[in-house]
Amino acid sequence: MEYEIVKSSSEDFDRGIWEIFKFVTSTGDTYIYPPETTKAQARKIWMQERVCYVVKDKITSAIMATYTIRPNKSGLGSHVCNAGFMVHPHYQNRRLGQAMCEHSLIEAKKLGYFAMQFNVVVSTNERAVYLWKKMGFKVIGTVPQAFNHKTNGLVDIHIMHRFL
Amino acid sequence: MEYEIVKSSSEDFDRGIWEIFKFVTSTGDTYIYPPETTKAQARKIWMQERVCYVVKDKITSAIMATYTIRPNKSGLGSHVCNAGFMVHPHYQNRRLGQAMCEHSLIEAKKLGYFAMQFNVVVSTNERAVYLWKKMGFKVIGTVPQAFNHKTNGLVDIHIMHRFL
Repeated sequence: MEYEIVKSSSEDFDRGIWEIFKFVTSTGDTYIYPPETTKAQARKIWMQERVCYVVKDKITSAIMATYTIRPNKSGLGSHVCNAGFMVHPHYQNRRLGQAMCEHSLIEAKKLGYFAMQFNVVVSTNERAVYLWKKMGFKVIGTVPQAFNHKTNGLVDIHIMHRFL
Repeated sequence: MEYEIVKSSSEDFDRGIWEIFKFVTSTGDTYIYPPETTKAQARKIWMQERVCYVVKDKITSAIMATYTIRPNKSGLGSHVCNAGFMVHPHYQNRRLGQAMCEHSLIEAKKLGYFAMQFNVVVSTNERAVYLWKKMGFKVIGTVPQAFNHKTNGLVDIHIMHRFL
């Protein structure tokens, strides 16, 4: 299946991003946003004060996945960016996470960032930890019991980082 | 000098907090908020969605220092709090930082938090690193070159944590 990664339009939220956001957060095991996050809250989280991208099927234009880039901190820390990645469950196991991450590293550099940091990599999310390590990120810190996992209770959070 | 640590009123921002905020951020070496932060921005940062406390001179009611507590993350990470402490330069070297930290650990526990995390302890701020260690915090991670220090350029940030 051929796809392209492009900047999102505001219509993309209703055309697919919200469905992805809802699915990904519903499991309460990977993202800090609680499963009860509303559509309005999600729109604000994912579309405001960030640059948002979507992975689109080249033929059907279906939105398969999405990611965002934003400053990880404001002010004197704004040279480090943060990114978040979400894949629609129908399109998993197609390496879209890796494709988005590769894309994001180039985009973030173009946007003038110096490094990329993930603040909440849930330690039980082994696929994510494996993928980010493969993409050159290092675990630079682990916050004990900082994530209230839906099924496992309190689990550790990794902070991961790489220069661009 | 006798003082008390109490919850702030909204008038306290104009009565002393803004002056402290302005002084502390003007040096560009300890807080992520840039020296050019406006009064309106500072009010939003320090007084909204946080519990704010002030250290008051018992006799003159002068505001000597201030601190805030808030959830470090929303949603599934909201059981960990974050706190920020600022001392008026006229009242430094009186252990107000330590007094506020001791107070905050009790208050944070009362507020139902499970742990306290500092996201931005500038590595060159040796007094802060020393004090937080003395207060039971551990460096759980160091983000390389994540702080744009006014005089030293890019320096490391420590992330510090303790359970309550």
